[in-house]
This record gives sequence, C-alpha cells and structure tokens, in this order.
Amino acid sequence: MSLTNASPEAAAKAAKTSSRTLATLSVDARNSALDAIHDALSNAREDILAANATDLELAKKSTENGELNPSIYKRLDLSRKGKFDDMLQGIKDVRGLADPVGRVDLHTELDDGLILQRQTCPIGVLLIIFEARPEVIANIASLAIKSANAAILKGGKESTESFKAIATVISKALESTQVPNDSIQLVTTRDAVDPLLELSEYIDLVIPRGSNDLVRHCQRKAHMPVLGHADGLCSLYLHHDADAKMAVDVIVDSKTDYPAACNALETLLVHEDALSSILPAVASALISKGVTLKCDPKSKQALSSLPEQTHIQPSTEQDYSTEFLDLILAIRTVSSPSEAIEHINTHGSHHTDAILTASKQVADTFLNGVDAACKFWNASTRFCDGMRFGFGTEVGISTNKVHARGPVGLEGLTIHEYRISGNGQVAAAYGSGSGKRAYKHVRLPIN
Amino acid sequence: MSLTNASPEAAAKAAKTSSRTLATLSVDARNSALDAIHDALSNAREDILAANATDLELAKKSTENGELNPSIYKRLDLSRKGKFDDMLQGIKDVRGLADPVGRVDLHTELDDGLILQRQTCPIGVLLIIFEARPEVIANIASLAIKSANAAILKGGKESTESFKAIATVISKALESTQVPNDSIQLVTTRDAVDPLLELSEYIDLVIPRGSNDLVRHCQRKAHMPVLGHADGLCSLYLHHDADAKMAVDVIVDSKTDYPAACNALETLLVHEDALSSILPAVASALISKGVTLKCDPKSKQALSSLPEQTHIQPSTEQDYSTEFLDLILAIRTVSSPSEAIEHINTHGSHHTDAILTASKQVADTFLNGVDAACKFWNASTRFCDGMRFGFGTEVGISTNKVHARGPVGLEGLTIHEYRISGNGQVAAAYGSGSGKRAYKHVRLPIN
Repeated sequence: MSLTNASPEAAAKAAKTSSRTLATLSVDARNSALDAIHDALSNAREDILAANATDLELAKKSTENGELNPSIYKRLDLSRKGKFDDMLQGIKDVRGLADPVGRVDLHTELDDGLILQRQTCPIGVLLIIFEARPEVIANIASLAIKSANAAILKGGKESTESFKAIATVISKALESTQVPNDSIQLVTTRDAVDPLLELSEYIDLVIPRGSNDLVRHCQRKAHMPVLGHADGLCSLYLHHDADAKMAVDVIVDSKTDYPAACNALETLLVHEDALSSILPAVASALISKGVTLKCDPKSKQALSSLPEQTHIQPSTEQDYSTEFLDLILAIRTVSSPSEAIEHINTHGSHHTDAILTASKQVADTFLNGVDAACKFWNASTRFCDGMRFGFGTEVGISTNKVHARGPVGLEGLTIHEYRISGNGQVAAAYGSGSGKRAYKHVRLPIN
Repeated sequence: MSLTNASPEAAAKAAKTSSRTLATLSVDARNSALDAIHDALSNAREDILAANATDLELAKKSTENGELNPSIYKRLDLSRKGKFDDMLQGIKDVRGLADPVGRVDLHTELDDGLILQRQTCPIGVLLIIFEARPEVIANIASLAIKSANAAILKGGKESTESFKAIATVISKALESTQVPNDSIQLVTTRDAVDPLLELSEYIDLVIPRGSNDLVRHCQRKAHMPVLGHADGLCSLYLHHDADAKMAVDVIVDSKTDYPAACNALETLLVHEDALSSILPAVASALISKGVTLKCDPKSKQALSSLPEQTHIQPSTEQDYSTEFLDLILAIRTVSSPSEAIEHINTHGSHHTDAILTASKQVADTFLNGVDAACKFWNASTRFCDGMRFGFGTEVGISTNKVHARGPVGLEGLTIHEYRISGNGQVAAAYGSGSGKRAYKHVRLPIN
C-alpha cells in the first residue's frame, strides 16, 4: 500500500499496472500477504492507537462545537474494547474464505480438442470511498487483495491520521510479499475523488460506501460503473392470513433492530382485512419501542382506540417515499397483494421487501411481482446482510440492476472471462456448407 | 409490441409497468408468445417483403448517389434466398433454449427453517439500438420475451418500413398471448434516443449494437449502464515454439475469415525467434489473401526476401492502436511473452486475444496476464461468438468489466435476486450474546 501524493492519474495508472501482476498471483501468495498485514498491524497496535488518539482529539473539539455528529465520534474510536482485535480477526476471516478467482462455471467441448471454459477473474482496479471508521481500511484492503483486485481507497477525513498510520504499516508489510505495493493506494484529500471518477481507462469500478449524497455524486460524475445503493426504502406487506404473533415479532425487528440501517423497514402495507385483527397488536408493540406511526385514514381509524394517540399521526404522500432511518414507520392500507406489489414497485428502492402470509401461493405472487434485489417471506428485512447470508463479509449492498445485486461479498468483486484451448482450429472450417464441421457443444463436468 | 408515437417518457414508463407482468409469466406463456410471433410473421411474409421493397427502393437511390454504403444495401434485403426463413428459424431457436429465469445458483440454510436462495430474474427494461437489418427486430424481440425483459427497440433508419411492418405483425400476434403489448416497443425516430438515455428510472440497461460511434455516444449520454463493446482490437502472440502450419492456419483465419468483424485479428505480435522460422510462411499466406502487412523494422527485415514487397509496409505507432476492420494487419516483434502481454494490455481493447505456443506454461502465463474478456490458446480469435460458444444466440459482445462480458446470450440478459423463506425469524435473535442463536450457513443442494 502506498500513501499517495502522486497525481490522481499517476496513482490510477500505477494501480492498473499492479492489478495485472496481482491477477497472476496464486491464492497462497495473496493469503501470505494477508498474514503479513495481520501480523504487522498486531505488532504496531500502540503506534496506530496513538495516531487514532490524534483523530479523536480533533473530533472531540468538532463534536463540542457542534460540527461533528457524536455518533461519528464514537465510530472513530479504535481503542474501544475489542475493536482492534475485531479488525485483526476480520483479516483472518477474509484469509479463511475460499479463493473467489479462477472458479469455472461453464465448461464446454466446442469440438474435438476445442475446449471452452468460463472462469472468474478479478475486475481490475476498484475505487472505494468509505466512511470515517479506521478499521474499515484494513477490511477493504484484505477484500481487495483476496479477490486479486487493486484498489484506490479514500476514507472519511475524520480518520485521516489513523488511516495514514494503518496504511504505513500495511505498506511496509507488503514489501516482504509478492503483492505489489501499488496494488493498494490510499488518497487522503477529498479533491482527488472527482478527477479519479473520470479515469475510466484505469479504474474499472467505483464502490461508494456512506451517505446517499456520496453515492449519488459518484453516480452522476463517474465515467465507469458505480456499485452501491443510494436508498434503502424497504417495505413489508402484511397479508390478512399472517400469524399475528409472527407479525409483531418480524415487524418490530424489521423496524427497531437498527433503525439507521439501509435494511430497516420504512413502509408497512396492511391488507384491509388485517386492520382490526392484526394491526393493533403490531402498532402497540412498535409504539412501546418508541416508534411513531404515520397512518393513512383507514389504518389510523383502525388504531383509534389505542391509548398512545400521540404516536399515531396522519401520513402525507411524501411519507411513502421517505427513508426515515429513524423510529418512524409509514403505514398504508391495501385491498390486495397486487396493490401492495404496485405500491412497492412505484415507491420502493428495489433493496429488500418482505411479505407475511400463511399462503405459499400469495407469497409466490408477491415474490415474483416485486422488483427488488432481496425478497423475504415470513422473515425480517434485517436479514439482508452479507454476514447473515453466509458470504463471510461484504463491501456493501447493491441495488444496481446489472452485475452484483444485494449483499456484495468476494464473489461480487469478480467478473468472468472465457478461455479456449485448441489445437489450431479455425472458424472457417465450421458451418453448413459441404465439408464443413458442426460444433458439438457438449457440456463437460465442472470440477 | 407497439409502434410508439408516445413521448419517450410515456413509452419507457409503459415498458416498465409491462416488465413486471412479464416477470411473473411462466416460461410456457413466454414460449407461446414466441410461437404466435413465428406463425404471424410466417403468414405475413408477402406484406413484410412489400414493405422491405420500399426500404430497398429508397436505399438504392441513396446508394446510387453515394449516400449509402452498398454493404448496408445488401444487408437490408429480406427477400434474399433463405433470409426470411432464417429469421423465422431464429425465433424457433430462441424458443428451444432453456428458460434463463428462475435458475437457482445458491441455496443456503441460514438456520432451521430459514432458507436463502439466489436465483436468476429478468433485468427489467432494455433499450436496444441496432443496425439496419430488418430480421434483427424479430430476433431481439424473441430474446427479450424469452428472458422476460421488456424492451424498447430502435433500429437503423434505412429499415424503417420493414421494421414497422414486422412490428405491426408482432403487435397483433401478442394480442392473443399473455405477454403485454407494451413489453416490446418500437421507436422510429432518432430524436427519441437521447431522451430515452436519461430515463434511468424506467430503463435498466442500454444495449447499443452497431458502430463504435453509437456505442461511445450511449456511454457518454446514458444515465443507466451500457452493455457493449466500442472496439474490437484483437491481438495474437506467436511464440517461437508454435507449430508453423498451425500458425499459418490460425492467423489467416483470424485475419481474413471476416475482416470487418469485431473478433478479427488486428495486431500480430511475433517473438523474435520466430521471425525467420515461422513468420515468412504466415506472411506469404496472408498476402496471398490480399492482406497488407504494417511491419516494425525487425519484422520488415525478416520479410525482405519475400517477392510481394508492395504488401509489406513500415508501421507507425498509430497502427498498433487501430482497429482496421479491413485486410490490413499490424505486426510487431517482441522479445518475450511478458512484452506481448504488456503490449496487449496497453494497446488492446480487452475483447479477444490469442496465443500460439506448444508450451502450456507459456500459455498459462499469457492467459493469466492478459486483461481480456476472451483468451484463446491455439485457436482462432474468430471463435469469440455466442453461437460458436453454444449460447444459441447473442445480443452482442461485451467488453464491460462488470456484469456480462464476452458474447452475451440469454444468461447475460438476466441478473439475480435473493429470496428468503422463514417462519417468522428476527435478526435480533442472532449474535454472540447469551441466549443468542448462531447462523448455520449450511449449503443445500441445487436442483
């Protein structure tokens, strides 16, 4: 890793060159680099925490004069119990994952001795822009090296000193490995981002983590593809035949387990036949957790006998297009599953949507009709997560319609390539004329 | 299919709405629509050929006064022997392909009764811009319906009357099927393209076929991802241990089988130890096919005793970055496989590159080091093709680094979605605290 003071173009070009070397390294060589990084960071704990203390001191002042959100301050602190060890363990976890590169998923005999293989390969150079959490740099560097991608990293400015200290340690550790030092580059000035977004010749994919504004900025400015979700407006449709206790459990979890997360519930669609039978218990449970309900007239009427009326407010049309990221839930009454589907496809962000119903047929109609990356039947929207999906780790959740979609693990950091090996075959020998050969197209086993 | 006079926004919105219905149809319903289209086109042969004759008449005038390339005129003619029947057969071929939608490729038990599946699903709405070949509209409409995508089609203006006639027939045929009429829309004015490229709310992917200028225009203007290759600058590296006869066969085929194709060879890199042993025979064979060679000093020297010196010219640096699409081949001498790799990664277009060598080790070095969608060992670059790969058909060849890469068949027109079915599980129940559950992450078989 180098802490680059080079021009954005020089940095990107160096990353591109390194990416081709990285692509030729064995998984053992890449894993050895992860071991070296792990051990070096472990040995440099004191120096890194000292740099982190400098960030914290500055951040404390910014918090005190109101310039910085206290929740960001909390995330900066690498000396909190277990955090440094979690960072080290994260590197070991990525090392332990199966090699995502070189996996064959298509194997065809085109003709005698003419063999086609499709196999995974790295994407090339990633530009990853992330929030001010010091441990994230080690995690992302690990993911990039494991997937044989070069990466240019830009972290939140409040972590600058911690990032620099970690980058210096990683850079020194890589010197003793086969992974080229330029494979991972850290840029520390925000000014560098916009020029980098134009360098499609060298950078293959941008992964912005963090605020919706940042993602939209990248989507507008980037000359290369951008992987990321700008919004997580998740909905849940409560069908009238759903189990009442399940409805309380799943809706409360979806809304309150972590309201600031992109996979938290924002809109509840209730079948009109569930208004009096199921909704009141759900509403009471939500209100007892501090949730304010924004209701359409029918659902508000159905809740009119509940004691906590200050938490029950009339909704506006805008509420159904709002990602609250807070203890607020919009509720709308629908008369059919198809009305729920229509609402979700029009108002949702194609991230994660769920249905509660006892009927497999109703569930299938919903799952087929909704246009979303993740669709859950009788389970909380909060399960949309790379760790929970068993991917080991994730770089983010994508609402793109092409390439990776949903939680993006190592597999999402690869693409495929086609390889043919032959013994001198020429295309002109094949066709329908006389003396021409026909393709065999025999599917061969995949090992 | 509707022949839209609606505003681009209204057309795109209607396509989006239809796409959700299309996504819920069974493969039988989609196949029935293909049957209906096939039969209706077969019955309307005379009307369509009459419309095609109108296009041909106009095109003939444009050809005579030099406004239109005669090769385009030739491609317009739907009455040429076998062409109409080929169009009909193409629809049957797509009908015969396996359903690309709903294929499960990941199946995990997250916990008791909490099952995750990843399965393929349609992308949504495609905007496909294609050349003036009347039969292509039927082919593309078939691909879109089979993959359950809605599509907005814009064809080359020289085929307008043929397109309109075919669209009218398809539209009437769809009326008797479950596929919504708005799923496939034909726009006939070039003015509509730029506004459509901005409608990322409704259109998910642009597929421009045709000139490099068209592809670049779309890449610059589109607010959604663009699938396509702007250039096909393919190279072949001739190692000194290659079989001499194989070298002649494969290089002649790669260059001359169809010089205007994107998978035709443009640059030949020759190891210096092959200059006198293999290159002269290759050069003679190429020249006898009418190829002009643009040579660096060393390779020119090696060919100085050949009789056909008018076909052997000195190269310029620009020749190594040129997609000739003609009977011209740039030749450069290199001293190692790594110099060839470096040249290709710097000058190539990441489409298809090949190596001729007897050594598996040299081949592996080359295949791992080159950054291209398709990499062939001892086989012609011309094999890069969806039909030849056994995909049945292709919408194009992609040099994108994300999503589909290389020849794009039905599979490239799908993306995946994650589905979970549970029985009321909540995320808060899982974790490392006391009383918390752990995820099982058991891989289940894929049927």
